[in-house]
This record gives sequence, structure tokens and C-alpha cells, in this order.
Amino acid sequence: MQRPIAILDSGVGGLTVVREVMRQLPREKVIYFGDTARTPYGPRPAEEVVRFTDEIVTYLMQFKPKMIIIACNTATAVALEHIRSRVDIPVVGVINPGSRAAIKSTKSGIVGIIGTIGTVRSQAYEEALKRLNPNIHVASLACPLFVPLVEQGNFRSEQTFETIRSSLEPLKEIPLDTLILGCTHYPFLADTIGEVMGPGVKLISSDSETAREMSAILQETGKLAAQPELPVHQFFCSGDPRLFKRIAQQWLGEQIELTPVVWQIPQIG
Amino acid sequence: MQRPIAILDSGVGGLTVVREVMRQLPREKVIYFGDTARTPYGPRPAEEVVRFTDEIVTYLMQFKPKMIIIACNTATAVALEHIRSRVDIPVVGVINPGSRAAIKSTKSGIVGIIGTIGTVRSQAYEEALKRLNPNIHVASLACPLFVPLVEQGNFRSEQTFETIRSSLEPLKEIPLDTLILGCTHYPFLADTIGEVMGPGVKLISSDSETAREMSAILQETGKLAAQPELPVHQFFCSGDPRLFKRIAQQWLGEQIELTPVVWQIPQIG
Repeated sequence: MQRPIAILDSGVGGLTVVREVMRQLPREKVIYFGDTARTPYGPRPAEEVVRFTDEIVTYLMQFKPKMIIIACNTATAVALEHIRSRVDIPVVGVINPGSRAAIKSTKSGIVGIIGTIGTVRSQAYEEALKRLNPNIHVASLACPLFVPLVEQGNFRSEQTFETIRSSLEPLKEIPLDTLILGCTHYPFLADTIGEVMGPGVKLISSDSETAREMSAILQETGKLAAQPELPVHQFFCSGDPRLFKRIAQQWLGEQIELTPVVWQIPQIG
Repeated sequence: MQRPIAILDSGVGGLTVVREVMRQLPREKVIYFGDTARTPYGPRPAEEVVRFTDEIVTYLMQFKPKMIIIACNTATAVALEHIRSRVDIPVVGVINPGSRAAIKSTKSGIVGIIGTIGTVRSQAYEEALKRLNPNIHVASLACPLFVPLVEQGNFRSEQTFETIRSSLEPLKEIPLDTLILGCTHYPFLADTIGEVMGPGVKLISSDSETAREMSAILQETGKLAAQPELPVHQFFCSGDPRLFKRIAQQWLGEQIELTPVVWQIPQIG
């Protein structure tokens, strides 16, 4: 039996990573958990995010995944090391792949990061960037208004443009050439963010970068799926299943198999 | 003591990978071997390339590297699996990273590859691409005239443009949106290749992609260098040391420590 890749997120944002895995590695089976009942994680205290992430990982381990992807920047920032110490399979977050892509991209050595308050406060990107290359300069900015824009499906309105323009104002003063979209919701605003930042700034989306690193790690450890038939993915969410299903099918372009999960029942494991 | 990364190539082309490692991971120590006495590998029979690569790996193992990078497309194509079976450290070639970057980049699903005769004949890129994603369409083309242009330092002349334009003619008919520069020499011709192919074709250089995957694998296996002082790299070449030193210092922008190696002496190991 093929072992799946488990992908978890605070809600629907991590579906951007699922879409990239489906595109880059169509033979891999995905098990996705969106904690839509408790989204957003961004403003929550770190201990709470660690506990929630731990609960989801416990749930997902019943499917015997070969790898876990934490497709949420906030959860990666505060819970990655804890989850790594808990399971004996590779655990990949979105912060290292995004940081590595930024280091590959930057010529000026000045990298910007935008994310939730939780992600920016954790300084996880700064630490990841400097661990790889201590010469990188980093400018980070919390953009708490961006996730609500995406959740309203409000990608291209005049109000969206104005919110993004004024939010990013502080970064316009800095000679950065690379900007990490440090939240899985932000790729949906990439066109407008790009317009505001101008053509000299390359945007890094963690979704495609994470899928790509996952591919490298699976291949180097000899764990790439090899069977010819296409896998059937499975999705779980803790909140409104109809809303999740609608968004997932719209983003992934195909019907999905969804199981609602009620957190009030005793946890497995 | 810090364990180095061993990088080997048929000649000077792999210095593009060294430059990217120095840029992306400035704390890592590099041991480089350029087999300049026996370059180019492209037109040689596969068995000979395997034997040469094996000899270089035997030589480099005395430095107890933590990873080996085969920075030569021809050697990766024919010798990667053999070298992997011989040593108990990770061995990374340039073909998988380039293929993965191409899959991440392509929207049309049609990817072009240019390389030496040896690389194209091996079909190593086609196999790597289809192993990751069986839906990718591949068009490959051997460009035997490109390496001599680079070795003459002839990057931007009218003759160079004309050679590249006529060589790439067959690919212009194909609706590809991504072109893999499947030879470490080709990034030096990237400007002209890009001009000929047009803005709708993204060029993938294996040098920066390989350095980036190396970074991911070192990090996931907990082997990133962490000490604050900058490393002193070491270079070895089998051919003319003055020529190698001049090219290396020009490309890397710093003085290098070079040891000439004479292959006629009995091999170590």
C-alpha cells in the first residue's frame, strides 16, 4: 500500500501546497487536514498553536504517512521542532523552503518578509535565513489585514489594492529585491502585491517551494511514489464541511473526498 | 573539524556550482576537483566516464566529505547510481535538481533540454522528469558547439549569437515554456540563449538549483555547517594549474588554494 503525504493547515490556505504537490508530483497520495473550526492561528498564543498542531498530527498519524508537511507559517514558526521530536518521519515546514528560495533569488542580500502577527513575532524567518547565510539582511512586516481579504474572496477590488498599498508602505523605503509571502493565504494576493512592490522585487511563494523540497527529500530518501495509477486524496476539516468542500474543489479543480472531524470527541492516540 | 562538501566536474564548468554554494551557504567548506586533463566528458563512452568519476570520488573521499556533488551533467547521467552504491554519504547530481525546477516552472507541461551529446543520448533528463511527473512532455537537443564557445570565453560575439540561433532552431517549433540548460557550461551563454528563445521561455540553470537542493538535504539531515568563521576552500585539478587558477579566481572573485593532481601516479584506495 502506498504511504501518503500528510499536509496540515489552520484552514484552507494549505490547499495551495496540495495543489502544488498534485501538479509537481501527481503520483503522490495526499491526506489533508484543515483546522477550519479554529482558524486563524496567526493571533493565537504559541502554546495554543503547538497544542492544536500536535492534536492534528496525532490524528494524521493513523494513516501512516511517510512525511508530514506543516503548510501553515504560524504553526511552522512555533511547532515544527516539537513535531519533529514527536514523530520518526520527515517533517517539513514552509519556512525553510521559502527562506532557501529567497537566498537563491536575492542579489542585493536584502530580503523582505510579510506574514501574520504570530509569524513575524516569532522571528522564525529571520532565524532560518541567517542560519543559512548570516550575511542576509531582513526586513519583516506583519500584515494582519491580508488574511481577511482572502477569506472574503476579495482578491482584486479597489479596496484590496488600497489596503495592500498602505500596508506595504514601510517596505517601499527598503532596497529589497526579494519578498517572501510568509503566509499560505498571500499567494492569492500575489498579483496586487507584485503591482505595489514593482517589477524589481521577486515574490517567493512558499507553496510551490515547499512542494519542491518535499520532492527532493522523498527522492533522496528513496521514497517517491512509483505506481502508475493516480492516487485518491483524502481531506479532513474541523469546521463547516460544505464551505471547505466548495473552496477545495474550486482551487484544486476536481471533486474531493471530505470527512468532517469533530474535535469535541476524545482525541486518538 | 568541519566536514567539507566535495564537488567534482570534468573541468571548470562545475565552478558555477561552487560559486552558488559560496553564495547560498557561505559557511560550508568546499573541496573541488576539476578533471581538466581529461575534459570534455561529453563525447566519451559511458564506461570511461564512469571510471573517471569513480577515480575522482576515490581521491576526494580522503577528505571525509559529508556529501558529494557531481557537478557535471554527463557524469551525473551515466555515473550517479554507481557512485551512490559506492559511498555511504549523500550523492547529489545536477539532473534531478534541474528537473525538479523545470517541473515547478512549467505551465504548459512541455520542457526542453539542451546538453552535450552524452547527456542527451543517455536520456537521463527525460527519465528524471517522467519519474517525477509522467505527464511532462520533453524535447531534447544536443548542442555540441556550445562548450567550445564557452571554453574560448566567447560569450557574446556575433558568431556566438549565430551559432546559438541556428543550433536552437529545432526547439523554436515546439511550444515549450521552460528550457533546462543541461550542461554546467551553458549558464555562461544564458543571455544569448534567452534572447534566441524569447521571453516566454524560462531558463533553468542547474548550478543554483543544485546548490539549493544540497542546502535542503544538509538541513533535513542536520548537517548544515554552524561555526561562525568562514571556511577555506580547496581546489584540485588534473590539467594545467595556471589556467585553472586564472579561471577559478576570475569566476569566484577570490584567491584560491589549488593543488595540481597528476593522474599517472597510482590511485589512492
